[in-house]
Amino acid sequence: MMSLNLDSFLNTISMQNTSPQPSMVYLVGAGPGDPSLITVRGLMALRQADVILYDRLIALELLREAKPEAELIDVGKVSFRTQQKFTQEQINELIIQRAQAGKTVVRLKGGDPFVFGRGGEEALACYAVNVPFTIVPGVSSAIAVPAYAGIPVTHRAYNTSFTVFSGHEDPSKTESTTDFAMLAQSAKSGTLVLLMGLLNLPILLNKLMAAGLDPNTPAACIEWGSTPKQRVVEAIVNDLPACVAEAGLQPPAITIIGGVVALRQMGLQWFN
Amino acid sequence: MMSLNLDSFLNTISMQNTSPQPSMVYLVGAGPGDPSLITVRGLMALRQADVILYDRLIALELLREAKPEAELIDVGKVSFRTQQKFTQEQINELIIQRAQAGKTVVRLKGGDPFVFGRGGEEALACYAVNVPFTIVPGVSSAIAVPAYAGIPVTHRAYNTSFTVFSGHEDPSKTESTTDFAMLAQSAKSGTLVLLMGLLNLPILLNKLMAAGLDPNTPAACIEWGSTPKQRVVEAIVNDLPACVAEAGLQPPAITIIGGVVALRQMGLQWFN
Repeated sequence: MMSLNLDSFLNTISMQNTSPQPSMVYLVGAGPGDPSLITVRGLMALRQADVILYDRLIALELLREAKPEAELIDVGKVSFRTQQKFTQEQINELIIQRAQAGKTVVRLKGGDPFVFGRGGEEALACYAVNVPFTIVPGVSSAIAVPAYAGIPVTHRAYNTSFTVFSGHEDPSKTESTTDFAMLAQSAKSGTLVLLMGLLNLPILLNKLMAAGLDPNTPAACIEWGSTPKQRVVEAIVNDLPACVAEAGLQPPAITIIGGVVALRQMGLQWFN
Repeated sequence: MMSLNLDSFLNTISMQNTSPQPSMVYLVGAGPGDPSLITVRGLMALRQADVILYDRLIALELLREAKPEAELIDVGKVSFRTQQKFTQEQINELIIQRAQAGKTVVRLKGGDPFVFGRGGEEALACYAVNVPFTIVPGVSSAIAVPAYAGIPVTHRAYNTSFTVFSGHEDPSKTESTTDFAMLAQSAKSGTLVLLMGLLNLPILLNKLMAAGLDPNTPAACIEWGSTPKQRVVEAIVNDLPACVAEAGLQPPAITIIGGVVALRQMGLQWFN
């Protein structure tokens, strides 16, 4: 293997904050699953951190980059005592408490911190108590997971737009803010990517079809995208829930809907 | 500065293709402008390449990572002889010719190769002649440029979706495939991000307002996002073109429309 050292790279680029800053909170996107998709800046922050609060879906190999004495907190874990996950408020409190104790804090999140990652909430919580923070964007799963399955979210012959939405909102709740008519329309003229929401997939697709989505639109569901566990199920929208159930796909999964899915069969199923 | 070496990292992660592969084409996303936002995998590919074909908007500092003997081809440059840019067909030919000569080729693109980056076309061109290729996703400018300006593309209180569209299509052409009604609707219930298209901004915003976009929707235009040259102009949609003209913003620029823009004033204007 070639010798790969970051020092020369860091000396050539004009970066602020290359030294660890006490009391600084880095909200870092870990990327979609493949650990090599973390950014250079994100890796630097990881290596400098005194405290790392990490989510369930990040590549655990990344934690080996932490200093031996770093405190690692799994905030995606269900508490043994209460059988509950950390609430967002508890996570905010932990971040702020550690930063106010003078620690360099990394909040490591799957994908990008600002794509349904609640990074904005954590940043505002820091701001409210004068704790300095920095966002380190990551490779979004919404784009990279389809890519690893051989599906570009845009392709010149197919679309000039793509829409990403979170299926995490309970689709049965009456006060839903999800605009299914717009989403259905976006899958007609562009590409529609659904993050999370696998368990709600039949309900969500029914709502989209009721709102005008063509049941024959190509679609694919990708489980554990960009990792060695990746599995892909491809079907028209109408058949996707049955095919996903038959294959036994489980969360985490991403669903992509639109003409670009056909490119997978046209040669884009490369092997990364 | 801390010692930062990639070797230990690469030894801990299960990566395929860590050794340079002759005749392999890597379609690499360079990220939005800040060179430290390249992925670890992208940096590895750069350092192994015999040939690098790069776009106009990538951070030029990244090219210092190439082997001294690597061939660097600026395919974003206007030809002195013909006064024309390389066509996509010429770029495809160069990639394939170098790969078939046994070289390891990196095609380095701004942002992500599959977000209006024509990466799919290059991959299909390779596939058509049996040249092996790999996609290395990048941090998309559509998400990271607003982030560096203090604007999350999603925020729990505001939206459950976001839409990205390319303003590069000539908006005056009659056969436009851009669905302005859908885009206008997406900015109501979610966030709308416009990549490129700064010169068409008045026409595009007029079309969106004619299709139902509220002229009072918060918006921002970001020039050279995530670089030291970054400038941000914030205004309601109706006033944005005049404010952009007054500030003299030039391409490259990204426009973001929706309620999340207000977060910039609520404390998310941190300093990266």
